[in-house]
Amino acid sequence: MTLASRSLVTIDDLSNGEIEALFSLTDEMSGSMKEQFGLCRGKVMASLFFEPSTRTRLSFETAMHRLGGSVISAVDTKATSLAKGESLADMARVVGSYADIIVIRHPWEGAAKVVADYAGVPVINAGDGGHQHPTQTLCDLYTIKKERQTIKGLKIALWGDLKYGRTVHSLIFALAKLEANILFCPTPGLEVPEHVIKKLTTEYGGELEKYEASAQTSEKGLSSLDAIYITPGSPHQLAMMPNVSIQVELKRGVDALYVTRPQKERFATAEEGQEVEERYSTVDKKLLKEKEFKRTLIMHPLPRVDELACELDADPRSMYFKQAALGVPIRMALISLLLGVKEISIPHEDSSPRTDYPLYKRGFGVKCPNPRCVSVQESEVKYIKPEFKIVNSKPLTLRCVYCEHGFEPKYVASSEWHEGTLAEKKYHSAQSHWARKIKPENLIIFDSESEAEAHGFKPSHYTPEHR
Amino acid sequence: MTLASRSLVTIDDLSNGEIEALFSLTDEMSGSMKEQFGLCRGKVMASLFFEPSTRTRLSFETAMHRLGGSVISAVDTKATSLAKGESLADMARVVGSYADIIVIRHPWEGAAKVVADYAGVPVINAGDGGHQHPTQTLCDLYTIKKERQTIKGLKIALWGDLKYGRTVHSLIFALAKLEANILFCPTPGLEVPEHVIKKLTTEYGGELEKYEASAQTSEKGLSSLDAIYITPGSPHQLAMMPNVSIQVELKRGVDALYVTRPQKERFATAEEGQEVEERYSTVDKKLLKEKEFKRTLIMHPLPRVDELACELDADPRSMYFKQAALGVPIRMALISLLLGVKEISIPHEDSSPRTDYPLYKRGFGVKCPNPRCVSVQESEVKYIKPEFKIVNSKPLTLRCVYCEHGFEPKYVASSEWHEGTLAEKKYHSAQSHWARKIKPENLIIFDSESEAEAHGFKPSHYTPEHR
Amino acid sequence: MTLASRSLVTIDDLSNGEIEALFSLTDEMSGSMKEQFGLCRGKVMASLFFEPSTRTRLSFETAMHRLGGSVISAVDTKATSLAKGESLADMARVVGSYADIIVIRHPWEGAAKVVADYAGVPVINAGDGGHQHPTQTLCDLYTIKKERQTIKGLKIALWGDLKYGRTVHSLIFALAKLEANILFCPTPGLEVPEHVIKKLTTEYGGELEKYEASAQTSEKGLSSLDAIYITPGSPHQLAMMPNVSIQVELKRGVDALYVTRPQKERFATAEEGQEVEERYSTVDKKLLKEKEFKRTLIMHPLPRVDELACELDADPRSMYFKQAALGVPIRMALISLLLGVKEISIPHEDSSPRTDYPLYKRGFGVKCPNPRCVSVQESEVKYIKPEFKIVNSKPLTLRCVYCEHGFEPKYVASSEWHEGTLAEKKYHSAQSHWARKIKPENLIIFDSESEAEAHGFKPSHYTPEHR
Repeated sequence: MTLASRSLVTIDDLSNGEIEALFSLTDEMSGSMKEQFGLCRGKVMASLFFEPSTRTRLSFETAMHRLGGSVISAVDTKATSLAKGESLADMARVVGSYADIIVIRHPWEGAAKVVADYAGVPVINAGDGGHQHPTQTLCDLYTIKKERQTIKGLKIALWGDLKYGRTVHSLIFALAKLEANILFCPTPGLEVPEHVIKKLTTEYGGELEKYEASAQTSEKGLSSLDAIYITPGSPHQLAMMPNVSIQVELKRGVDALYVTRPQKERFATAEEGQEVEERYSTVDKKLLKEKEFKRTLIMHPLPRVDELACELDADPRSMYFKQAALGVPIRMALISLLLGVKEISIPHEDSSPRTDYPLYKRGFGVKCPNPRCVSVQESEVKYIKPEFKIVNSKPLTLRCVYCEHGFEPKYVASSEWHEGTLAEKKYHSAQSHWARKIKPENLIIFDSESEAEAHGFKPSHYTPEHR
Repeated sequence: MTLASRSLVTIDDLSNGEIEALFSLTDEMSGSMKEQFGLCRGKVMASLFFEPSTRTRLSFETAMHRLGGSVISAVDTKATSLAKGESLADMARVVGSYADIIVIRHPWEGAAKVVADYAGVPVINAGDGGHQHPTQTLCDLYTIKKERQTIKGLKIALWGDLKYGRTVHSLIFALAKLEANILFCPTPGLEVPEHVIKKLTTEYGGELEKYEASAQTSEKGLSSLDAIYITPGSPHQLAMMPNVSIQVELKRGVDALYVTRPQKERFATAEEGQEVEERYSTVDKKLLKEKEFKRTLIMHPLPRVDELACELDADPRSMYFKQAALGVPIRMALISLLLGVKEISIPHEDSSPRTDYPLYKRGFGVKCPNPRCVSVQESEVKYIKPEFKIVNSKPLTLRCVYCEHGFEPKYVASSEWHEGTLAEKKYHSAQSHWARKIKPENLIIFDSESEAEAHGFKPSHYTPEHR
Repeated sequence: MTLASRSLVTIDDLSNGEIEALFSLTDEMSGSMKEQFGLCRGKVMASLFFEPSTRTRLSFETAMHRLGGSVISAVDTKATSLAKGESLADMARVVGSYADIIVIRHPWEGAAKVVADYAGVPVINAGDGGHQHPTQTLCDLYTIKKERQTIKGLKIALWGDLKYGRTVHSLIFALAKLEANILFCPTPGLEVPEHVIKKLTTEYGGELEKYEASAQTSEKGLSSLDAIYITPGSPHQLAMMPNVSIQVELKRGVDALYVTRPQKERFATAEEGQEVEERYSTVDKKLLKEKEFKRTLIMHPLPRVDELACELDADPRSMYFKQAALGVPIRMALISLLLGVKEISIPHEDSSPRTDYPLYKRGFGVKCPNPRCVSVQESEVKYIKPEFKIVNSKPLTLRCVYCEHGFEPKYVASSEWHEGTLAEKKYHSAQSHWARKIKPENLIIFDSESEAEAHGFKPSHYTPEHR
């Protein structure tokens, strides 16, 4: 089976079987790096980094060079034609006509999907705002796999900024897919966003147990633990575990502690940064003396600042420099597969097909409320039509197909009015019982009353405000 | 015949025969891209971009990589030693001692000529301020040629910013050389500069018919048409065409509509930008329904902003993404020729040799009045001697050999005074009859009376002011 | 013998024999450039430039490409993860896990040593603040060697900014090692720093004769000569030369005049820049008419601004463009050696082993007073322990192992107190006779009284202040 011509925008673009096959190819390649040279001879990779990066960009470029390919590179919005107001789609089409594969980092969430939609060649997301960073996740998973042989059933603790870190979001979904248990240990104020939690519990089938931080758990160690995601794949270990036994279970040991830095560049205000910094606790030798960390892999996507003490660098549990180094063979394997110069056999195909949600794509009435979403940027609205998955009907919940932010729109109407079934064009509260009578294919959604009225709809007497 | 060791600074550096031979080589190369790999093995291209660019730089670098060569790259003045006050000549000599070929983009007009003068290796101008961008022109011409088989006798409409767009200036001269007819449709206020018009009519032998915009022509369609250049090569079609029949002729169809974006970064003031934006009309589906555009190639050098509607992207007449894609094989062919790894046979040599103007290069008295000309920049005046072509004698008109701006200096004198023929060192108005008695080899030209007097000349009684 | 896996941080990292062998390899390589292609096939060089550069970076990258290797490149602090507060050590470890060799330029003095300490692969210093730039020095020496066959016994004059120019500092030590005589001709106010002079006279064994500028020497020519370093290797020529005969000796000719530009970017204030500019004299045709320059090689590390007149570019004595061009083969040879793809035989080993100073590395009490030293930067103090060579004991003088700045700390104590030998923890003036009684292995050094007291020491009654 081939991955040729596919793109990697989110970690969900790869099935479990494909991830495992990619890891096998990585094993093979890292064992014979010199022999891989020439595999991509004559191929050109475009490396487009519109946000600061050292390791990701250099790692991708090294991977391509070690395969014998060439690299063209742009590293700053200001030095490119995007500064002249060009759209991402135009840029993607042009660069796609030059290069054989594109690697893109961009501050707008969903940017990589737009580039993949228009480039005509495989596209790899190297980070799109706070959304995803799937190749970092592949490095993380591959490091765990190499050390523990499997990911299924492990207990992985996530530590620090779980709100803004895109690497964490990609990792959460990947761990859930691969049936690991996840321990959330956020810095207070930087908890996992609600939309991530919702996606996690509705699509991956596990359960989320919430804890009062530092009440249920030990005062040291994982004191900031505020929730555990229990995978359906490992019922005998944690599932249905009563809260009181959590400490006992944790003492058996955490498999990996994944530390993240505060993503200050995404904080809303300088004050938020200041406050968070004071609350941010450091992972150091003292913490790692706790019993639950005896055999824990210490991980970090790097760069680190102060959240992970230098004194741990020589500790045999520290995996973060290894994690970074493995980025090269992982990316060599990925590039080879997407360019079609290598093929893989998938050991077993996933039994659980992905949830297929109905789509909402009228192109009017509602737009993504995330200001960092690519679909609402001035240079992009000219050609991007808003598009959403209807991930829930009660309450009506949309998820943007670009940035994957979820939200609950307020007003709805039916398109059936023009067929005479309804006497008048009316809009309803999304919560009302009328709303639920509208067939999905007829649904029209509005952000606001004024938006609905601008499209010629009148308020229904059955909206909550009028009852 | 070989183009090895030659530079491409302006489109005039290539004869018609050489352009045709280059296009043949491009055809050959684009049909067998993989076989070109290795042609430039061991060669190094320096890619120096001192102004924002995505497509041009990445296109050149892709071309070199697809030929198997290597690239060294500098993308910003601030990150280079030019920030330390180094001259272009020094930079050219040093980089020329590293690389086998140099590609340069620079904001100063004439910069590429200076680099070519000093580098000692072939230099390709990738855009020098508002002056020229000859490889973009080659892409444009090659796209038209591929679609229409010839350029001779076609009707090409130029649309939008015809004042600041360097791609347009290169294209105008190239179309004239290749005997196409040119329809000028400027956004009001952004008409073709006078010096371009003058060069066009004096050197290429065609005629320029001027129109009152929207009076002579249809209100829709080419409503902004203000002039037509009629090539001497196609007398039966448009030459001597009475104004009244212009509409009839146009209805027969325009071969290509070349749209350009407003070059805001070169506008004199923010107000100019604001006003122009309001007058700038958009090329969209509605416009293209006009009869004259039925089979028109829609072209744009990209990046576009709002002047060309996204709704046209799927229109079969739209050529702009193809134009960009053809940039790679065109540049592969060009690089191969200048590096001497490929040779071409010129199908037929030009019958019309270029005009040879007398040169004025005294190094004092007069300097180029264009403030963006390389010859007047602080770091360059130390070693660049002003040099001009005397392109007209009545009125006396100079054209800078660097930026090609033309101007009419005010005062002249003769160097013969020191041989005793004239009793005194006198300077004259350039308009006076005395001025025309001076032999070209004795001519001394001054910007101002004070400049003349600083060189020891006294006013002539025969200057107009004294008559 | 092999240089594989070694780093080049300062010019002292290479012995005289190694430098000569490197030059032989350079001769060999520059005679057959095409045959070198492929030597580094499959190798990756990381080119990290955190300060502006054209020639050094492009020269290194060209060298790697001409060897058939690949390059990954980062050119600006702002575009890299250092902007996120990452330490140099982390960056070095990560990039070292990608690339086979690292070239680094950085504004902090000693930065290249830190990178070399942590990268795990060979590191080449391409300039670290005002500290060193050893490959420029190799180009300089190689140019002289090619023109004069030897360096030993030559008279080399250094001209201009001898204070801030790192290329000059590297060159001074290299010339001393290779037994040349050095004539210092600084622009007034930009004399060679005292710590350089001290190292020169204590470690290289020569003598320094000082002159009153323009008193002892000719008014023209080397009028700014203020000192001569006389190598012990050439006693018959200059050593013991009475001051009165200096003019006679100089008239016999200077072998090379090494001109430098004012390093304005390192000047303390804009005023310093302004004043210096006025005092900076230009090397031009007139100066070079002086008898002592009849056969002098005119050298400059480039970029130049106004200190070296363009009128000299065609003068056969001018070597500066040749110097730049030789940067490519020199760097090809160096990269090949450090990567171990070439080996060299050392013609003769140095007879004079380097001075071995005792080390002081307690990690507290004293830190480097140079604000540009890597060891005192906020992101680096977390893991770098200050470390010094004790280069003199009377007065006690330390030299930072990172930036090589020397200084005289004020207070000392002995660590023997805790063994009960001393009744109390006391600190002493570094000048006091008590200070000199402390055994080197027991020495504790303090920057200030408050620092000493913070570590629990009390003032000794024998400190000068209390006598």
